[in-house]
Amino acid sequence: MTSPGVDTETLELWFELGSNYSYLTVMRIEELARKHRVEIIWKPFLLGPIFKSFGWDSSPFVLQKEKGAYTWRDMARQCEKYHLRWTRPSKFPRRTVLPTRVALLGADEPWIGAYSKQLMQINFAEDRDIDTPEVVSDVLEALALPAADLLRAAQSEENKLRLREQTDEARRRGVFGAPTFFVGAEMFWGNDRLEDALGLATRKRSKVREA
Amino acid sequence: MTSPGVDTETLELWFELGSNYSYLTVMRIEELARKHRVEIIWKPFLLGPIFKSFGWDSSPFVLQKEKGAYTWRDMARQCEKYHLRWTRPSKFPRRTVLPTRVALLGADEPWIGAYSKQLMQINFAEDRDIDTPEVVSDVLEALALPAADLLRAAQSEENKLRLREQTDEARRRGVFGAPTFFVGAEMFWGNDRLEDALGLATRKRSKVREA
Repeated sequence: MTSPGVDTETLELWFELGSNYSYLTVMRIEELARKHRVEIIWKPFLLGPIFKSFGWDSSPFVLQKEKGAYTWRDMARQCEKYHLRWTRPSKFPRRTVLPTRVALLGADEPWIGAYSKQLMQINFAEDRDIDTPEVVSDVLEALALPAADLLRAAQSEENKLRLREQTDEARRRGVFGAPTFFVGAEMFWGNDRLEDALGLATRKRSKVREA
Repeated sequence: MTSPGVDTETLELWFELGSNYSYLTVMRIEELARKHRVEIIWKPFLLGPIFKSFGWDSSPFVLQKEKGAYTWRDMARQCEKYHLRWTRPSKFPRRTVLPTRVALLGADEPWIGAYSKQLMQINFAEDRDIDTPEVVSDVLEALALPAADLLRAAQSEENKLRLREQTDEARRRGVFGAPTFFVGAEMFWGNDRLEDALGLATRKRSKVREA
């Protein structure tokens, strides 16, 4: 994707719309990536099947109550630090299949960032479900997108299969949580590593320019 | 401990000598705490009994292989970032009972930081066992401390009981990993939160001074 003449490097953002730490990243990444002149490759996927492959039937924040209790306090503090709205979700983790199928359709489109932020805020600031055609339509329409067409395409067998393949790719590449970043082969896990990952992308660009 | 007239605030550092992320914190905390004018309360404890209380017979980095594989890559990068020596330990997690009993004896002594750093480096930079009287003696003697006396006191029934109680206190207070910081009742988990915890301690001091 990036060639020596092009003054940008890429970062893959693997995110799940129901993941609270993905919320912190999705809300922050576009501005940071712009500053670092790094291109984001958006990779929506589902964490549920990944957790199932570990033998877990829910999020570790649900299964391990001590970590769960901590997570909600941590989220409140992190959102304060980043000046983000925050309401502890009354349902967690929320189902995200439909909005993630739509995100996959839009992954290379200019609206993916705005779309993902909207869904994240509905989940983590407004404490509402996001896995309904009504909510997804509202978000798409607010972005002046053809909601009905996108929902239909999202629910096609071909797109359902694509999402399963995307999630399989995450698992094959060692993803075990979200958000996860890849800069080349280097994997970074968690919102706390976003700046490190962007830093690596920037250093890679410098090397390309020196070469 | 802190009164309005005293220009310092305290941070409790709960750490385990066998924990790789505790290594990052123990190597960094003294300088950072000095800069923030925050007093460190050193709280050595054992993670093993905490993990056992969750039904785990080892570290999550061993039990969950995807996270384990990532952790070693992450550690190499984090040590590079912080300019710390790093060798992936050939044994993990290492036993730490004896050096932790000694750390408990020294927790309020001026040598606790230097002692803990030395042990951490033996484990994570030199890849050597630390749960032997020889290694602990060498470290104590290098610090000009009475090694034989300290080892004897460390192995007393009274001190063994104190360590069990310290670990029980960690569990009671919701500690589920290491390092963990407390600033008053606020708990922070992980080396990634050290700066946030110090920041809170500093803000608390400002409030005390304003009052």
